[in-house]
Amino acid sequence: MESLRTPFRGIIKDVRGRAACYKQDWACGFCSGARILAPTAYIFFASALPVIAFGEQLSRDTDGSLSTVETLASTAICGIIHSIFGGQPLLILGVAEPTVIMYTYLYNFAKGRSDLGSELYLAWAGWVCVWTALLLFLLAIFNACTIITRFTRIAGELFGMLITVLFIQEAIKGLISEFDIPKADNPALEKYQFQWLYTNGLLAIIFAIGLFYTALKSRKARSWRYSTGWFRGLIADYGVPLMVLTWTALSFAVPKRVPDGVPRRLFCPLPWESASLHHWTVIKDMWKVPPTHIFSAFIPAVMIAGLYFFDHSVASQMAQQKEFNLKKPSAYHYDIFLLGLLTLLCGLLGLPPSNGVLPQSPMHTKSLAVLNKQMIQKRMVQSAKECMKQRATNSEIYGKMQEVFIEMDKTPTFTSTVKELQDLKEAVLKADDGGDGNTKFDPEKYIDAHLPVRVNEQRMSNLLQSCLVGLSVCAIPVIKLIPTSVLWGYFAYMAIDSLPGNQFWERILLLFITPGRRYRVLEGVHASFVESVPFKSIAVFTLFQFVYLLICFGVTWVPIAGILFPLPFFLLISIRQHILPKLFKHDHLQELDAAEYEEIAATPYRSRSLSFKDIRPSDSGDEESEEDFCDAEILDEMTTSRGELKLRTVSFKEEMLFRVRNQNFYSYECSISISSCIALTLAFGSVGSLRRCLSTMIL
Amino acid sequence: MESLRTPFRGIIKDVRGRAACYKQDWACGFCSGARILAPTAYIFFASALPVIAFGEQLSRDTDGSLSTVETLASTAICGIIHSIFGGQPLLILGVAEPTVIMYTYLYNFAKGRSDLGSELYLAWAGWVCVWTALLLFLLAIFNACTIITRFTRIAGELFGMLITVLFIQEAIKGLISEFDIPKADNPALEKYQFQWLYTNGLLAIIFAIGLFYTALKSRKARSWRYSTGWFRGLIADYGVPLMVLTWTALSFAVPKRVPDGVPRRLFCPLPWESASLHHWTVIKDMWKVPPTHIFSAFIPAVMIAGLYFFDHSVASQMAQQKEFNLKKPSAYHYDIFLLGLLTLLCGLLGLPPSNGVLPQSPMHTKSLAVLNKQMIQKRMVQSAKECMKQRATNSEIYGKMQEVFIEMDKTPTFTSTVKELQDLKEAVLKADDGGDGNTKFDPEKYIDAHLPVRVNEQRMSNLLQSCLVGLSVCAIPVIKLIPTSVLWGYFAYMAIDSLPGNQFWERILLLFITPGRRYRVLEGVHASFVESVPFKSIAVFTLFQFVYLLICFGVTWVPIAGILFPLPFFLLISIRQHILPKLFKHDHLQELDAAEYEEIAATPYRSRSLSFKDIRPSDSGDEESEEDFCDAEILDEMTTSRGELKLRTVSFKEEMLFRVRNQNFYSYECSISISSCIALTLAFGSVGSLRRCLSTMIL
Repeated sequence: MESLRTPFRGIIKDVRGRAACYKQDWACGFCSGARILAPTAYIFFASALPVIAFGEQLSRDTDGSLSTVETLASTAICGIIHSIFGGQPLLILGVAEPTVIMYTYLYNFAKGRSDLGSELYLAWAGWVCVWTALLLFLLAIFNACTIITRFTRIAGELFGMLITVLFIQEAIKGLISEFDIPKADNPALEKYQFQWLYTNGLLAIIFAIGLFYTALKSRKARSWRYSTGWFRGLIADYGVPLMVLTWTALSFAVPKRVPDGVPRRLFCPLPWESASLHHWTVIKDMWKVPPTHIFSAFIPAVMIAGLYFFDHSVASQMAQQKEFNLKKPSAYHYDIFLLGLLTLLCGLLGLPPSNGVLPQSPMHTKSLAVLNKQMIQKRMVQSAKECMKQRATNSEIYGKMQEVFIEMDKTPTFTSTVKELQDLKEAVLKADDGGDGNTKFDPEKYIDAHLPVRVNEQRMSNLLQSCLVGLSVCAIPVIKLIPTSVLWGYFAYMAIDSLPGNQFWERILLLFITPGRRYRVLEGVHASFVESVPFKSIAVFTLFQFVYLLICFGVTWVPIAGILFPLPFFLLISIRQHILPKLFKHDHLQELDAAEYEEIAATPYRSRSLSFKDIRPSDSGDEESEEDFCDAEILDEMTTSRGELKLRTVSFKEEMLFRVRNQNFYSYECSISISSCIALTLAFGSVGSLRRCLSTMIL
Repeated sequence: MESLRTPFRGIIKDVRGRAACYKQDWACGFCSGARILAPTAYIFFASALPVIAFGEQLSRDTDGSLSTVETLASTAICGIIHSIFGGQPLLILGVAEPTVIMYTYLYNFAKGRSDLGSELYLAWAGWVCVWTALLLFLLAIFNACTIITRFTRIAGELFGMLITVLFIQEAIKGLISEFDIPKADNPALEKYQFQWLYTNGLLAIIFAIGLFYTALKSRKARSWRYSTGWFRGLIADYGVPLMVLTWTALSFAVPKRVPDGVPRRLFCPLPWESASLHHWTVIKDMWKVPPTHIFSAFIPAVMIAGLYFFDHSVASQMAQQKEFNLKKPSAYHYDIFLLGLLTLLCGLLGLPPSNGVLPQSPMHTKSLAVLNKQMIQKRMVQSAKECMKQRATNSEIYGKMQEVFIEMDKTPTFTSTVKELQDLKEAVLKADDGGDGNTKFDPEKYIDAHLPVRVNEQRMSNLLQSCLVGLSVCAIPVIKLIPTSVLWGYFAYMAIDSLPGNQFWERILLLFITPGRRYRVLEGVHASFVESVPFKSIAVFTLFQFVYLLICFGVTWVPIAGILFPLPFFLLISIRQHILPKLFKHDHLQELDAAEYEEIAATPYRSRSLSFKDIRPSDSGDEESEEDFCDAEILDEMTTSRGELKLRTVSFKEEMLFRVRNQNFYSYECSISISSCIALTLAFGSVGSLRRCLSTMIL
C-alpha cells in the first residue's frame, strides 16, 4: 500500500492542477454568455425532479421529519459550494436514492429507541454524518481513489439494478397507498369516504401510468421521424418535466363536485413554516444524544462513507470519460475531501447530504460538449468562407481556420492543438483531388467532420443550476400542486429508463430468447460479449449476478440489519477479484465485466447462418432453431392488415446508385437476389423459399 | 356494354365451375380431419368479436330495436347458407360497419316519420332489403362484376379510412357516454349518483385503454424476441379475444362496496326473451308500411346495393389473390346473386344483412394455406426419409416425393403439378453437387423451400365457424358480462390496427416528415411509390384524397341526407377514370393507385446520399436536411442511460464469416469501415465524422 505511505499526495496534486485553471474556469463561463443557459436549464430540470420525488419518499418514510424542502435545500447548498470550491466543476451533486434509503433506516432505528425517538432522529443522523465525514477525510488523505479501478461493471450494474428494483417497489407501494387512508390523518374527512378513496385510487392509476408512458416516449423524441429537429430536441431534453406539468394540469380537470384532496397532492411544509425552521437547532440537540448512540452512529457511517466514496468517484469518472477528451485535470482525491466537508455541514444542519449523481453528471458534460462545438465551428466556417471569397488556396484557408481555432480554444494545453488539427489539415489540403466525389469545397462539411469535440469546462453552468434548485425551494407552494400519483409514475419511469445500456439487464433478457431466435440479437446492434463469450458462460455469470441481486434486495427488507445493505457490494469487489477469476476464463470475464461498453454493428440481413449455433456448434438448441423461425411470421410481415399480400422488389434507387458508381457489387446483387427471392416466394407461394434464399445468400 | 347483351352468362359460368368441384369441397374438408379446427377457431374469434361490438353499437343507435342477438343471428344464418350453397367457400360473411351505419340512418329516418315510427322501423328496413336484393339480382344477371377492376386502391383505401375514422368516433363517443346516465334509464338508481357515474367513467378509461394497448401489442406477438414459437403464435392468433377475456375478468375485481352496474356491461335482450322473438312478425308488418315509404325505401336500397356489391366483390377478390395460387374457379357473379337472396331473407326476418368481410376472408385463406402445406410436407418428408434409408438415388427420392404429392393433392387440375414441381425436382437432383454448401442432403429443407403453397379449398371450416357463431347466440348470457368500455377499447383497436398497409395513411404520415429526415423512410422497408414518384405529386395526390375524406366524413353528419354517404365513393370511381389522369402523369398515377402493394427492401445503411434530395435534386428542402440530422441524435444513440458512452466495433463474427468464405467483400469492408468510423468518431470525439464516413461510404 504505497499510497498509504504518502498521505495528502493526491489532494495536493489535485489542488495544484485545478488551481492552475481556476481563473479560466470562470472566464470560459462568462465568455460563452447567454449560450450557457441551455445546458443550465437542461441539467436543472434533470436534477430537480428526482430530488423532489426523493423528498416526497423521505417525508412518507420519516413521517415528515424530512421532506422535499430539505432535499432541495441540501442539493442547492452542496451544489453551490461544490461549483465554487469543487475540484471537477462538471460533477453534479444531489440527494440520491441511497441517501434516502439510509436516512429511512436511521429514522426507523431512532424511532425504535426510547432514548432517541423521532425528536433526536436528526441529531443522531448528525452524528452519523460527523463519522462519515471523518472517514471520507481519511479516504481522501490516504489516496484511496487509486483503487477506483476495482469498482468494475459487475458491482456498478448490480447496484444500478438494486436501485431500479427499489424504484419499482416505491412506485407500487405508492400506488397502493392511494387506495387507503394515510396514517396520522383524520379518517372522518369526506375525502376518505370509501367512494372518494376509490376514485382517488383510480385517478392515481390513470395519472401514474399516463406520466410513465408519456415520459418514456418523450425521451425517445430525438429519433422520431416526424416534425422538425429543434422540436424533437426540445421534447427529448425537456419532455419529462413537461409531462409532469401536463399531468399536473390535467389533475385539475376533475369536476368540481369531487371533494378537494382528491386526487391527493404532494405533502410538504413551506420552508418558512416552523416545521422547516427547527433545523438551526439540530446542532444544539446533538449533545443530547446519549454517548452509546454517538458511537453506534459509527456503523451506519461506515456504510454511508463507502457508498458515497463509490458513488461520487464513479459519477466523477463518468463525467470525465476519455471520449470527451477534456483538457483540464481531474480531482478525485480533493473532491472526496470536499464531500466530507459537505456531509459534515449537512449533518449539522440536519439535512440529508448530497453526493455526485448519475446520470446527470455525464449529461452535463455532454450538453457542454455539443455547445462548444457549435461556437467554434460557426467562427471557423465564417472565416473560411471569407478566405474563399478572396480566392485563397486551401493551405491559406487552413491557416486561417487554425488561427481562429487556437484563438477561440483557450486551454492550458494548446500546444497539442496543431497535432489535433492535423486530421483537418490533411482533409482540407487534399480537398482539390475531389477524392470524396464532390467537386466544390465546402468548409462546413470538413470542419464538422474533423473538428475534435471541445467541452466548455467551466463552473458557471453548475453554479447557475444549483442556484435555480435553491430558488425552487421558494417555489414549494407550486411544487405542492403535483399529485403524488404523478410521482409514483415518475419513479416507475426512472426505473425503466435506467435499464437500457445496463449489460446485466441485457444479459437477463438474453436468457429468455430461445436459441432459435438469438440471431435476432445479432441483427440489431449488440454488446460485444454476445459474440465473444459462449452462451453457457453468459448464462452462469448472469445467474450468479441475479442471485446476488436477490440477496441484496433481501437485505434491504431486514428490519434493522437492513442498514448494512451496502455491505454485499463491498464484498462483491473482493469476490470479483479472488473468486470469479477461478470460475470463468480470463478473457470471458474481461468481456462480461468490461470497463467500456463495447457494441457491435448490426449484421446487414436476417441471415440464419449468423445465428449462435453456427458460430458455436457446441451450443445447444440447434434443433429448436429450425421450427422457431415459422412461416406464419414471414406471411405476417408480407400481409397488410387488410389481408393484402405485399410484393417486395429491389430498390431501383440502389440499383441506379450502385450501377452508376459500378462498385459495391455485393450489396447490389444481394439486394437484387433478396428481392428476387421474395418475388419468387410470392410467385411460387412458398414462404419456405424466402427463408432458403436468405440463408443461402450468406453461405 | 357487351356484358349487358348476354345476361346470366357470368352466373351460369360460375355455377358450372363450382359444381365441378363441389363434391370435392366437402371431401377435402373431411379428409383433413381434426386439423381443420385450428383455422376454424381462428376465423371464428376473428369474426365473432366485431359482430358483437357492432351489435352493441346498433343497440345504442337504434334504442335497442336491434342488438348483438340480431347481428350474431344474421352472421350465423348467412354464413351457414353461404358455406353450403355459396360459390367461393373461402369468403367469410358477417355484419359489417357499413351495414350498421346504414341501419342507424334508416332508424333515425323511420323514427322521424309519424307514419312509420320505431314500430315499423324493421318492416320498412325489410322493404329496403327487398329493393336491395332486386338490385343485386340485376347486377349479378348483367355480369356487373366485370367492372370490378374499376374499384382501384384509391376508393378502397378512402373507404377504409372513413371506417377507421368512424370507429375512432365510436370509441370516443362511447367513452364519454360512460360518464353520464344512458337515456331511457331511471336516473334515481344508486349507480347513477354522481360519484358512481364518475367512478364508472374512470374505470371505463382504464379498461378501454388497457384493452386497446394490450390488444395492439398481442397482435405483434409473432415477431417478439422472447418465449417459444408456439406461444408467440398463440398470442398473435388469439391474443385479442384473450385480452377481452382478461379485461372482463379484471372488471370483476372492483370491490364489493361498488354498486353493481358499475362498471357498465353489455346490454342486450336474451334470444329467448320476447324482445328478440318479434322478428317472426316483421314480415306481417311489412304490409302496414304506407306505399309512399315502400317506394322511398328504394333510395337507401341503391346505396346499400352499391356498398354490398363493392364490399362483397373486393373481399372475395382478397380471399383469392393470385399469390395463394388457388386451384378452383372464382364465382363473383353467382355470389352476388346469392348475396341478394341472403339480403332478402334477412330483410324478411328483420335482421341486418351480412356480406363478405375484410380482413377475415383473406385471413381464412391464409390460415388454410399454411395448414395444407404442413400436411403434404409431413408425408413427403417421411417418404423421402424412407427412401434414403434404402440408399435410393436422388432421382428415386424425387420420384417418390412427387408420387406422394400427386396422391395427396387431389385437385381437378393436377396435370400442372409436374410442371410446378419442376423447381423441386431440379433442386433435389442437383443436391449431390453440394452447390448450396451443405454436404448432407436434407429433404425437409428442400421440400420446405420448393413446395408451392396449397390452399385446402373446402367448405368445412367456413361452415363450422358459422355454426360456432350460431351457438354463441346461446352464449349471450356470458357475452353480457363484457364491460361496454372494453368494447370502446376494441373499436379503437380495430381502427388503429387497420392503418398499417393502408398506403393513403402511409402517404399522410410521409407529409409530416421533414425533407431532411426522409432518408429514414428509405432505411426501412417502404412502398415503391416513395422512390418512383416525385414528392410533389405524392403530396398533391394525398391532399386531394384527404380533402375528399373530409367531405365523405362530413356527409355522414348530415341528418337525413347522411344516408347518401356511399355516393362520394361511386363518384370517386369516375373521377379516378376521367379527371385524375389529366392531373397526374400516367405512370405516377399507376404507382400511387397500384393494384398490388409493392414494397422495396430497406437500404442497408443510413446513407445520407440516399435521402430524397439526392435522387431528385429538383426536390425542395436541401438546406434543411443539413441541420435536421443533428449530432445530439448520434450522441444519444451512443450513450447508455447512465451516461456511459458506447464503443462500437466491427462484428468479428462477420469478419470470420466473410474471410473464411472469402467473398462478399463489400459487406465485409463496409462493416469494417463503418465500425472504424465510429471508433474514430469516439476517438476524436467528433460525432460529425461519423456522419461524414457514413455518407462517403456510398459515394
